[in-house]
Amino acid sequence: MKKTTKNDVMNALRQVMDPELHRSVVDLNMVRGLSISGGIVAFTLALTIPECPLRDQIAEDSRIAVQALPGVQEVQVTLGAMTDEERRAVLGATNEPPGLAAANNRIERVIAVMSGKGGVGKSLVTGLLATALKRAGQRVGILDADITGPSIPKLFGVKGPLKGGESGVEPALSRTGIKLMSINFLLPDEGEAVIWRGPMISGAIKQFWGDVQWGTLDTLLVDLPPGTSDAALTVMQSLPINGILMVTTPQSLANMIVRKAVRMAQAINVPILGVIENLGGFVAPDTGKRYDIFGPSHAEEVATLAGAPVLARLPIDPQVAALCDAGKIEEVSRSEMDTVIAALNRK
Amino acid sequence: MKKTTKNDVMNALRQVMDPELHRSVVDLNMVRGLSISGGIVAFTLALTIPECPLRDQIAEDSRIAVQALPGVQEVQVTLGAMTDEERRAVLGATNEPPGLAAANNRIERVIAVMSGKGGVGKSLVTGLLATALKRAGQRVGILDADITGPSIPKLFGVKGPLKGGESGVEPALSRTGIKLMSINFLLPDEGEAVIWRGPMISGAIKQFWGDVQWGTLDTLLVDLPPGTSDAALTVMQSLPINGILMVTTPQSLANMIVRKAVRMAQAINVPILGVIENLGGFVAPDTGKRYDIFGPSHAEEVATLAGAPVLARLPIDPQVAALCDAGKIEEVSRSEMDTVIAALNRK
Repeated sequence: MKKTTKNDVMNALRQVMDPELHRSVVDLNMVRGLSISGGIVAFTLALTIPECPLRDQIAEDSRIAVQALPGVQEVQVTLGAMTDEERRAVLGATNEPPGLAAANNRIERVIAVMSGKGGVGKSLVTGLLATALKRAGQRVGILDADITGPSIPKLFGVKGPLKGGESGVEPALSRTGIKLMSINFLLPDEGEAVIWRGPMISGAIKQFWGDVQWGTLDTLLVDLPPGTSDAALTVMQSLPINGILMVTTPQSLANMIVRKAVRMAQAINVPILGVIENLGGFVAPDTGKRYDIFGPSHAEEVATLAGAPVLARLPIDPQVAALCDAGKIEEVSRSEMDTVIAALNRK
Repeated sequence: MKKTTKNDVMNALRQVMDPELHRSVVDLNMVRGLSISGGIVAFTLALTIPECPLRDQIAEDSRIAVQALPGVQEVQVTLGAMTDEERRAVLGATNEPPGLAAANNRIERVIAVMSGKGGVGKSLVTGLLATALKRAGQRVGILDADITGPSIPKLFGVKGPLKGGESGVEPALSRTGIKLMSINFLLPDEGEAVIWRGPMISGAIKQFWGDVQWGTLDTLLVDLPPGTSDAALTVMQSLPINGILMVTTPQSLANMIVRKAVRMAQAINVPILGVIENLGGFVAPDTGKRYDIFGPSHAEEVATLAGAPVLARLPIDPQVAALCDAGKIEEVSRSEMDTVIAALNRK
């Protein structure tokens, strides 16, 4: 009987696809330490994410593919994880085109604003920070990665349509000159629903990165939607994120969900630069009395888990809410953003 | 030359898959009014969702598949939409198994709580309504469809693990006897991240429906996550939803995103039963003075678009927030829920 060769095994494993990345485990350079000895085939699968929820499926698919080869009696699959560098090399080397505008874009740093929980103020923080960075003289952009619930256009009072050509789409410009890209600039009506499943959400985010004429930016902020699913995965895996700002609120419930976002960032090895607490209390404008409407702060707990400092605490301010609703977030000035900028500049 | 038959065309179209539903357009009964006349093939594709964002792709895939047949000179594809009844018949007749527990479950009505926007209080409304229904003597369950940011376990102060057997998983029971199912009951630590792309999110929701021993329920409430992507699509397409309660807040920004959720429900033909406004103003406990922290109400605008009444307006109540954070939502009594229950009972 013909002896099984390493080549046979690799060819068999070429049929096994990573269900997340839609590329084979061989193509992804996941197969390591392959040995064949007397009908026993052993190898390690180096996963791109150690806690990958699909790891058992990948291992089982690989086992079955190799077991089917003639002459194989036993298959021993060990699960491992790639180093951060290997992961970036593999995920960076996708077959996707870089995008129409990619060659002309020079983006110094990319910061994602995340929380896991909805309605905690990710977009508010993104908008306030962009405004503060712009005032400090930076060239700033915002990539609104919330495809089904985009807030950025409304906060800045900016509407589409956008101009586009062969070298990509031109982002919208805010009153103070911040470059903005959001799905709502592409919709005929801002209230139109975007009823898309994950792959289309991911595709849109990648286009917002590669097909938009960002030009030269000192900072691009990425406003993430709630959750730890497609949008967050695509941003963390496909964009060169330098770090994450984690937004939370005093609610214990929010705290629990923000912890999930922290765990996700840690699993994918994207550094968390700091924690920002929003909705931290309401000061009555007439009496000056402070009410902890959503309970006492839990920001330090999130910071401890994240291994990053609490950079800012934002109170509830009806005036800010009114300016945001009026599309005038750039008229808001919050000194709390100075600490955030200082932390970014240290990186 | 052999003449193209209707059979040939149908066989060619059997290769064209609906990218959402992963079943062929023939299997989904989408091909209507097929005619062949002198090398010209014409037919209508009845889509399951009229505004399906992938409609052009389905049409183009179909055109290419038929064009490849020998003897075909031209293919004319018209796009149409299924009736509500047809859609339910087709989507109900999936090849998926009904679930381990489905045969023993008798669920009288299923109500989804939705908003599109995060952090507006969907879970709070779900919890308050379940509590009120239970007090009114109903058998009540909550299916927490927010897989990446589940709030229900914390609001009710309930933890896993759950018991399970060959006939499915037993839901958790709240203090007052509400049956609960949430991803957090299945995690070793409530703060663990669920880093899943859409198909796994959808799979989990379907299992929460079919593999959970709900038994006999008068009302099952489904707490949806933010967004109009996989989770919302799966709930609306795969579960027998009787109607939707739409939650909004006074913020104009929230209003815009909730309008997207309304449009989605309308596109998939799921009736909206009413609108509930949350975070409607803060009454200082010491002075009794009311502050419209998040601006004036926009609930009527959402109601007009939805063609459904505003059923309740919930103020900001620090005491409710504290009870929710302590897992004691069942100790909250809000008379606003009576109107909601009355509206449900009229259906």
